[in-house]
Amino acid sequence: MLPINAKTQVCGIFGHPVGHSLSPEIHNAAFQALGLPYVYVAHDVQPGCVVRALEGIRVLGYRGLSITIPHKVEAMAGVDEVDATARIIGCINTVVNENGRLLGYNSDGLGAVNALREAGADPCGSHTVVLGSGGAARAVAVTISREAPPETLTILGIDAAELDRLAADVRRQGKSTVHHEQLTDTSLQCALASADLVLHCSPIGMHPQEGRSLIPPALLRPTMAVFDAVYNPRRTRLMQDAEQAGCKTILGLEMFLGQAFVQFQLWTGQSAPRDVMRKVVEAKL
Amino acid sequence: MLPINAKTQVCGIFGHPVGHSLSPEIHNAAFQALGLPYVYVAHDVQPGCVVRALEGIRVLGYRGLSITIPHKVEAMAGVDEVDATARIIGCINTVVNENGRLLGYNSDGLGAVNALREAGADPCGSHTVVLGSGGAARAVAVTISREAPPETLTILGIDAAELDRLAADVRRQGKSTVHHEQLTDTSLQCALASADLVLHCSPIGMHPQEGRSLIPPALLRPTMAVFDAVYNPRRTRLMQDAEQAGCKTILGLEMFLGQAFVQFQLWTGQSAPRDVMRKVVEAKL
Repeated sequence: MLPINAKTQVCGIFGHPVGHSLSPEIHNAAFQALGLPYVYVAHDVQPGCVVRALEGIRVLGYRGLSITIPHKVEAMAGVDEVDATARIIGCINTVVNENGRLLGYNSDGLGAVNALREAGADPCGSHTVVLGSGGAARAVAVTISREAPPETLTILGIDAAELDRLAADVRRQGKSTVHHEQLTDTSLQCALASADLVLHCSPIGMHPQEGRSLIPPALLRPTMAVFDAVYNPRRTRLMQDAEQAGCKTILGLEMFLGQAFVQFQLWTGQSAPRDVMRKVVEAKL
Repeated sequence: MLPINAKTQVCGIFGHPVGHSLSPEIHNAAFQALGLPYVYVAHDVQPGCVVRALEGIRVLGYRGLSITIPHKVEAMAGVDEVDATARIIGCINTVVNENGRLLGYNSDGLGAVNALREAGADPCGSHTVVLGSGGAARAVAVTISREAPPETLTILGIDAAELDRLAADVRRQGKSTVHHEQLTDTSLQCALASADLVLHCSPIGMHPQEGRSLIPPALLRPTMAVFDAVYNPRRTRLMQDAEQAGCKTILGLEMFLGQAFVQFQLWTGQSAPRDVMRKVVEAKL
C-alpha cells in the first residue's frame, strides 16, 4: 500500500456485524496493486444509525462506501440519488460521494451479470430460471432483465407476496417473457426442462445448510449453465452436482468478486485488478 | 503497517486545509512500529461542520481524533466532556471515543511540558517568561501553571484583552506568582533579566516571518533555557541566537512531537514509539 498521508482518499464499509468482512483486504490490496492513494476501512454501524453514518461520511469527505447486511435498505434513505436499477431492486450496496452528493448503486446484480458473461453464460436471449425471491434474487433478476434480458425468465419462490412483487417488477422492464410460480417439485422440474441458465438465489446450501441443494441432480443437464449465489461454502452441493452433471458452473464467489470490481471502478475510475482481488478472496475462503 | 482488515480501528485528523498535515504519516508509522491494528486518516472538514463531523465519527466508531487549525475551538461543542486543562485553555486538539462518549483533551501544552522536562528544563519552580498570548501561549501557560508550576510566570503580549484574560486564567490556578505586561523593549529586557526559562509562543520567526526574532541576542544568557513554539522552519532565528548565546534550546518540533506522543497514548493505551515518530517528522521537515 502507498503510505497513508493527509491526501489519501478514504472508502469504507458499513455493516453490523462487520468484523468478518473481507472487503477491506480485497479493496486495499487492489488500491495497492494499482498504486492508488486510497484506503478502505470498516465501520460497525448500529441499525437505525445508517442515515446519520452517511451524513458523517459526507461531512468527512469519504470517496465511497460498500453497504452490507443489514443496512442495504436503510441506506437508501441517506443518499441523494439512487440509480434506476438499484431503485427497482429496492436497496443499495454501493455509495459514491461526488463532491458531497451521495449516489447510491446496487452492484450485486451487475456483479452476477458480468460473472455470467465472462463464463460464457450471458443471460441475454436465454431461457433463464431464477430460484428464490429474496434480496439476492431481486438483485439478479432485476439486473439481468434490464442489462441482459433473457428471452424467458421464470422465477420460482416460496414466499408468495415477495415472489409476486419481484415478478411484477421484472415484468415491468418489458424485455423478457416472465413466468412466476410457487416453487414445488413439479414447477421446478417443469421450469428446468427448458432452461439453459439456472440462477440459484435461495439460502439453501449456505451455512448452516451446507450440504443441501434445492435441485435434484436428475434435473441437471449438460447443456445448462448453473450459477449459485451462495459463496460460503465456496463450492456448494449444487455446484458439485452441476459439475458432475457436466453443466457449466459459476460460483457465488464470482458474483461477490464481480460486485467488488464494479465498486472499485465507481470509486477510482479505474478497472479493478481482478486477479489481485480474486487472490485475496481465495486465500481467505 | 498491519494489513487493514475489518477489525482495524480508525483514528483521524480534522483540519482545513489538511493536505499538508504530517500526522497521518507520524501515527501510522507508530501503529506499524508497535504492530497495532489501527489506521489514521485525514479529513478536510469545512468550518461550521465540525460538530456534524464529530457526530459522524461517533456513529462510525472511530477510536480517536486529532483536531487542528481552524477547528480546535469549534470542536469543543461536539464532544461530551472536556478535560479541565483543555477547558481552561479554551480548545481541544484531541478526541478519544470511549464507547460512543467523546472526550476532548488538549495535548499541546502537555507536549511542551514533557519536551521541556526531557530537555532538563522543567518549568516547575523556575522563573518563566511566556511571550505571546494567543493559542499556543494559552496552551503552554495554562498547562505549565497546572502541571509544572513555575515560581514566577511572566506573560508579555501585544493584544491587551487577550493578555489580560490569559493572565487571569493562569493566576486562577494559584500555583505561580503571575505577572503580565504589554510587550515592549523595556518590559522584555526587564522580564528576561531574571528568567531562567523563556517560552516563545508568538508567530515571529514562522513562515513568512522566518529570519526574524522577538528577542535581541544581547538579552540571552547561557543560564537560560529557551523554547520556541514555532517549528517551521525547524530551527528558527531565535533558536540559532539562543544556541549561539550558550542557552539550552528546545525546538518547537519537540512540542509538536510531544502532543502527538500524548495523543497516541490516549488512543492506544501504549507508550508512543518516540524515535519512530521523530524520524518521520525529521525526514519531512
